[in-house]
Amino acid sequence: MDLKPTKPLSGFIELLPAQQRCFDYCANRMQSVLRDCGYSRLDLPAIERAEVLTDKDNWDEIETQIFLFQKGDTKMGLRYDGTVGLSRFVAGHMNGLNFPFYTYQFARNYRGERPQRGRYREFWQLDIDILGVQTLSLNYDAEIVSTLMRMYESISDIVGGIRVKIGNRRFWNAMFAYLNLNADQARDAFVLIDKRDKISDFFEGLVETIGESAAKEIDAVFANGYRSFVGKTNELDAAIAEMDRFMDLLNAMGVKNAEIDVSIMRGHSYYTGIVFEFFSIDYPDLPAVGGGGRYEDLVSKFSKTKIVGVGASIGLSRLLVALMDENKIDLSRFESNVDVAVLVMGDANMPYAMQVLNKLRAEKIPSLAYLDTDKKFKNQIEYADKIGARFAAIIGETEVANKTVALKNMTTGEQQSVSVSEAIKIIKG
Amino acid sequence: MDLKPTKPLSGFIELLPAQQRCFDYCANRMQSVLRDCGYSRLDLPAIERAEVLTDKDNWDEIETQIFLFQKGDTKMGLRYDGTVGLSRFVAGHMNGLNFPFYTYQFARNYRGERPQRGRYREFWQLDIDILGVQTLSLNYDAEIVSTLMRMYESISDIVGGIRVKIGNRRFWNAMFAYLNLNADQARDAFVLIDKRDKISDFFEGLVETIGESAAKEIDAVFANGYRSFVGKTNELDAAIAEMDRFMDLLNAMGVKNAEIDVSIMRGHSYYTGIVFEFFSIDYPDLPAVGGGGRYEDLVSKFSKTKIVGVGASIGLSRLLVALMDENKIDLSRFESNVDVAVLVMGDANMPYAMQVLNKLRAEKIPSLAYLDTDKKFKNQIEYADKIGARFAAIIGETEVANKTVALKNMTTGEQQSVSVSEAIKIIKG
Repeated sequence: MDLKPTKPLSGFIELLPAQQRCFDYCANRMQSVLRDCGYSRLDLPAIERAEVLTDKDNWDEIETQIFLFQKGDTKMGLRYDGTVGLSRFVAGHMNGLNFPFYTYQFARNYRGERPQRGRYREFWQLDIDILGVQTLSLNYDAEIVSTLMRMYESISDIVGGIRVKIGNRRFWNAMFAYLNLNADQARDAFVLIDKRDKISDFFEGLVETIGESAAKEIDAVFANGYRSFVGKTNELDAAIAEMDRFMDLLNAMGVKNAEIDVSIMRGHSYYTGIVFEFFSIDYPDLPAVGGGGRYEDLVSKFSKTKIVGVGASIGLSRLLVALMDENKIDLSRFESNVDVAVLVMGDANMPYAMQVLNKLRAEKIPSLAYLDTDKKFKNQIEYADKIGARFAAIIGETEVANKTVALKNMTTGEQQSVSVSEAIKIIKG
Repeated sequence: MDLKPTKPLSGFIELLPAQQRCFDYCANRMQSVLRDCGYSRLDLPAIERAEVLTDKDNWDEIETQIFLFQKGDTKMGLRYDGTVGLSRFVAGHMNGLNFPFYTYQFARNYRGERPQRGRYREFWQLDIDILGVQTLSLNYDAEIVSTLMRMYESISDIVGGIRVKIGNRRFWNAMFAYLNLNADQARDAFVLIDKRDKISDFFEGLVETIGESAAKEIDAVFANGYRSFVGKTNELDAAIAEMDRFMDLLNAMGVKNAEIDVSIMRGHSYYTGIVFEFFSIDYPDLPAVGGGGRYEDLVSKFSKTKIVGVGASIGLSRLLVALMDENKIDLSRFESNVDVAVLVMGDANMPYAMQVLNKLRAEKIPSLAYLDTDKKFKNQIEYADKIGARFAAIIGETEVANKTVALKNMTTGEQQSVSVSEAIKIIKG
């Protein structure tokens, strides 16, 4: 019989144990920040009705984005972000939740697209949201940015420093109105500005879409700064004032490394106000490592009550796997998950060895045992070495008779005969 | 426009925040035990090639068990347990792993079947395995049982006590050989014994399948105990001795509430030796809340190297949701995730309020702020009450001027004006 393939499907991530420990360390640190900041975790289904995931019926087009399939008569698909499921959940539990509702999700999301480098079909994402009924002040947008910066700071030993760039959808809406663009022109200009970093003929594209004089005005935003449009219209003034106010708030919250960059748009069409993206300071070639913004209209598909929100997401798989792939993370501290390997010289010594193992584990000293007791000492000590155990606790007849362990320091090679409680003291250092 | 449905698809679980905190508490406690016991976490893809998940091509039949679908030309499906993916992974990383390999997974698994009460199409499961090359002593089977009991013990405040029943596939193979059953008869008898608790005509079924005299012998196993077959054949003696030895090992490991029950079979065909199932002591009506056993042949589909394993799984969703559905879990300690709600009386006081919030969070005191600063005090204090905050830290002009907070104990109603560091002392109690 032919052997089955051992590789996962393309676009799916599979980490080795040390990589996984690094990933879990980061995920746990970040979630610990979220708990300190009072966000409640939700764990929503990975599978939703297709009609919940998309408004469109053109599957061919959508399937590049969303992982859709059919079971029996039911069209369904895999969640591609946290916001759609959250909107559905909140609409269905309006009376059981308290608003503003601070919440987060840490879940796998899926994309239907053919995988490219750095893009995965399955990936872990942290989604952080605050939802309010009817209103939600700008302060919450700043709270979200502040919390994300705190989360990144908690894993700065792994990923280095992070900075945040702030944009404002309202600024561009005001700008497009000021330039008298029609809806089609505004949409095209929006797409061009969103992709500005990635295209070489940004200005030519603008000219073609909205004419030369409007294109020059938009170019002036980048050449002379958004503040050069103060005094043009009330809407522009309000949008600019909102950005200034936002920076003051971030400052009050102690957020460092924040700056305004009006080219930040965030592709999703649902954002309506302040938007933001996070970038690595130490690895400037990485694309945005997180982002989010204000949305006003998402829950309206599920409920007549107006819910407004501000949300952000961190693509943790994308960030960490990118850095691991380029050997940017020192995994040496994650190589071992074991402090002590208990080695048992002969099955007769098992009962005592198990007592020793139990005591170590009860002390929360990560410990396991090599239990093929008929294997030679050489094989057993090699195993202790390979798994990176700091100590080997060797149990033979002498140890059973004297109620001791032969404790070998795997780094220095030093070995001593000590009681179990002495051994625990030595191991805990 | 019609509103979209707010309920998840049937068979999918969605917990409210307090339920989720209880679930996460249990999941974290159990994983903490696994870390202390030196098991390395793996996080394998949720989606596998269909050929990895199943050996059969009859989709209609398999789809009741496995969640299969097609994307482009690729048949794929959602993982239904941790063992298949683990076998694939281990075969593909033979040289990067150390054996015996202590590992665990905590992941969502899927079933294609129409959901019934207590059965879900998506559920969290802990899969714990130890894998060895060529051999793995019986001690590891005991190690797994011991570790699972330790895991259940870590959440006994939530789920009560757990006991474990031990069976042995070798005993029945020896029994069927002793009774001269052919392969078909043995398989049918196996199925009947596996379902013995659920069927009323167990004995009649046996008679029909294997004849009256063989049926009486099998009935005698339950009537007179498996030890009444000591001395019949060498194979029976070896299987019985293995069970006795196993109980001695569990005893040496300090495992309480363990007993032999040879009717424990575990449905999966891949088990080859000792099998075990865990049951609630406090809720005896619950079906098994975990189980596992020895398997010898799983990895052979992926590799020519012989890998033997012993594994177990805990259906955490199934256990906790069953207890929550019947109100068997007191969720009061999980109702709140916030110690302090910072209430801000007017936007001018935001900068100072944010400093206070930062200090609380830096002290790991779970805290959030009500940031619609124009809302009345009454609304704000109601929010602090609703989210179950133990304290409200109220910030108005006076507090900003005096660098204090008005700290209100939400249980007693007592309010005092104190410095931030005094407030932290009071909150930490």
